[in-house]
Amino acid sequence: MAKASLPQSPLAPKRLADLPPIEGARMAVTNSGTRYKGRPDLLLMSFAAGTVVAGLTTSSSMPGAPVEWCRRHLPKGKAAGLVVNAGNANVFTGRAGAEAVTAVAAAAARLLGCKSGEVMLASTGVIGQILPHVKIVEALTPLPGKLQADGWADAAEAIRTTDTFPKRATQSCAIAGQAVTINGIAKGSGMIAPDMATMLCFIATDAKLPPEILQVLLREANAESFNCLTVDGDTSTSDTVLLFATGQARHPKIDEVRDPRLKDFRDALFRLMADLAEQVARDGEGARKLVTVRVSGAATAKSARKIALTIANSPLVKTAIAGEDANWGRIVMAVGKSGEKADRDRLAIRIGGQLVTAKGMIHPDYDEARATAHLKESEIDIEVDVGVGRGRAKVWTCDLTHGYIDINADYRS
Amino acid sequence: MAKASLPQSPLAPKRLADLPPIEGARMAVTNSGTRYKGRPDLLLMSFAAGTVVAGLTTSSSMPGAPVEWCRRHLPKGKAAGLVVNAGNANVFTGRAGAEAVTAVAAAAARLLGCKSGEVMLASTGVIGQILPHVKIVEALTPLPGKLQADGWADAAEAIRTTDTFPKRATQSCAIAGQAVTINGIAKGSGMIAPDMATMLCFIATDAKLPPEILQVLLREANAESFNCLTVDGDTSTSDTVLLFATGQARHPKIDEVRDPRLKDFRDALFRLMADLAEQVARDGEGARKLVTVRVSGAATAKSARKIALTIANSPLVKTAIAGEDANWGRIVMAVGKSGEKADRDRLAIRIGGQLVTAKGMIHPDYDEARATAHLKESEIDIEVDVGVGRGRAKVWTCDLTHGYIDINADYRS
Repeated sequence: MAKASLPQSPLAPKRLADLPPIEGARMAVTNSGTRYKGRPDLLLMSFAAGTVVAGLTTSSSMPGAPVEWCRRHLPKGKAAGLVVNAGNANVFTGRAGAEAVTAVAAAAARLLGCKSGEVMLASTGVIGQILPHVKIVEALTPLPGKLQADGWADAAEAIRTTDTFPKRATQSCAIAGQAVTINGIAKGSGMIAPDMATMLCFIATDAKLPPEILQVLLREANAESFNCLTVDGDTSTSDTVLLFATGQARHPKIDEVRDPRLKDFRDALFRLMADLAEQVARDGEGARKLVTVRVSGAATAKSARKIALTIANSPLVKTAIAGEDANWGRIVMAVGKSGEKADRDRLAIRIGGQLVTAKGMIHPDYDEARATAHLKESEIDIEVDVGVGRGRAKVWTCDLTHGYIDINADYRS
Repeated sequence: MAKASLPQSPLAPKRLADLPPIEGARMAVTNSGTRYKGRPDLLLMSFAAGTVVAGLTTSSSMPGAPVEWCRRHLPKGKAAGLVVNAGNANVFTGRAGAEAVTAVAAAAARLLGCKSGEVMLASTGVIGQILPHVKIVEALTPLPGKLQADGWADAAEAIRTTDTFPKRATQSCAIAGQAVTINGIAKGSGMIAPDMATMLCFIATDAKLPPEILQVLLREANAESFNCLTVDGDTSTSDTVLLFATGQARHPKIDEVRDPRLKDFRDALFRLMADLAEQVARDGEGARKLVTVRVSGAATAKSARKIALTIANSPLVKTAIAGEDANWGRIVMAVGKSGEKADRDRLAIRIGGQLVTAKGMIHPDYDEARATAHLKESEIDIEVDVGVGRGRAKVWTCDLTHGYIDINADYRS
């Protein structure tokens, strides 16, 4: 059933980050016997008493059962555990799916000595197959004895599906002069892939912050990181980002999200999430090139983001980049189809920093050979100023290659 | 510069329609010497005195100069001529582009003995290159002596770019018991292709209708034909549909768009445009399968169309179809990401007529082998009822194959 493993993306980071322990967070992994053979695919995390949680889930109207579970329990803001399985997304599984999450959460709660609603759940993999929750519960049972603080690399491995490398990141920062650490792991390679994938991200910090503040910080950082990422424009039914704060750091109590002592933490959280989002783009299915699209001069930041995403999702822009063809007319086309305000005669397109257009036509000094040379590199920069306002956005994507078709059309049959 | 010609789409109609003359419409074609060698790429049409015109143009905010010309002159509703060139779209060409359309329209008006504003213009091909209008005008000069009523097949050939077959259709109908004919030709294979393409359609009829009525009928038919067509979701900067009515038919005057005597004409115009839209989908770049997506049970018809287009544009749905993989979870995903109202637990997906889902999960009688057998055919039917209302829509698309990547990434470099 599971695919043959794919060769590592040529865009994989040269070096993966080493994640230090987070006080109050421990983890253990195992093989669940449900889909993958010979590799861990089940993660249990345990959090110290007093841990709070914030979270964001997919905007899909067809959410998976674990997403519905998290949505129900996140508002209480308390967490003692997390269970993630890879290989079966438990999406579009009707009543059986809801029963499975209830059973898994109840078992984990018994093992960790907490309430069911304090166990967060996420699943990733094939859509539409009943989750064999009895096997999951059996596999979880010995894990409490194996929990360790130094298990982040194993955790990042266990949540992979079609990912060709694990995604992990860490940031150090300070709140009121006291050291705080933030770790994060993520998985995803298509927004959703043939029978697997979906974007999941789990972040833990020792910061001591109320869940309401955590939720605001997470939402803000997410808007400029994971929400600015696209591989194929297809939104998963399972997308989930959870942020756990164990409260073990020694900084004083913070009650206000606008407290200036939070600035360093806020920046570090954004850097961590942007780092993970870029890692997901680097592992886009079939990707040979990491593409950064920056839009400025839009009516609003929201408008800039929509224009940038329209460029980043255009099959014609993505295939031109795959073909190392400086076909800037396709960028004009994408801006035009976005539905957002843009001034054709003030449009300024830059490829690899070089100005391509001016006054509604090609710039007289534009050097196509120079643009083509930039497109032969593995990291491509596209900048577009649409000439109507001050809105800005930055979006990550990858090129559209034969590899994407291979992975999504040819592999399973 | 121009691409090597591509092999004919395997989805090309077995037989192309033969178009009869339309009284009051004559045409001539030639090679303009601008891009293509050894084939006509310039079309001049001439219309009898009293001909009226209606038209629709791209929603792109980056329209080409010919689109702007048509937008300026369509409101007057009068037409005496049409000039179309293939190979250069005259898009994003600044002041030079506007000067080129003025020069071409003035030359055609001199040749036909009409006002400039009564000449409609369309161009299709590469974006961002100055149109060599002196060559176009030279090539037009001998054409008035060659105008003939029986030139529809030549006209359909002359407007092709990457199209692998010409698109033409005809319908007969009656207004108040008098015979009326409608002919149409179209071009397009990607919504916009590497350095060419764009969707153009020119329709002529001998009906005698005021331009205001013609415009309403065209808009209504377009909403359910060309606006329900997608190859890659990339909207062209040149999309143009023009409908000319020469008024030579013998039916009585019609003053009201809701006049019941227009019903047969209205239906025939819709059939003609739906036929041409389907032909464009059959020539989608790299297409191996024609896909019809029908959505019902949506909150409104507009909502149904958005859901259908989201399914039809999803790279994961399109690659699954290319791979003949009955991966219905991707259809669930696409409905979920559409942003439109849908009831997961009442969602009914049918592939090739077979019910796949019920009660928010896979239907107990679903036979994957039967769905796979359907996907091996060349015409694929997907039906989705989203269970919330009575809105319906039907959309045509094609699969996403290695051929699309070849055409758009590999060919030009």
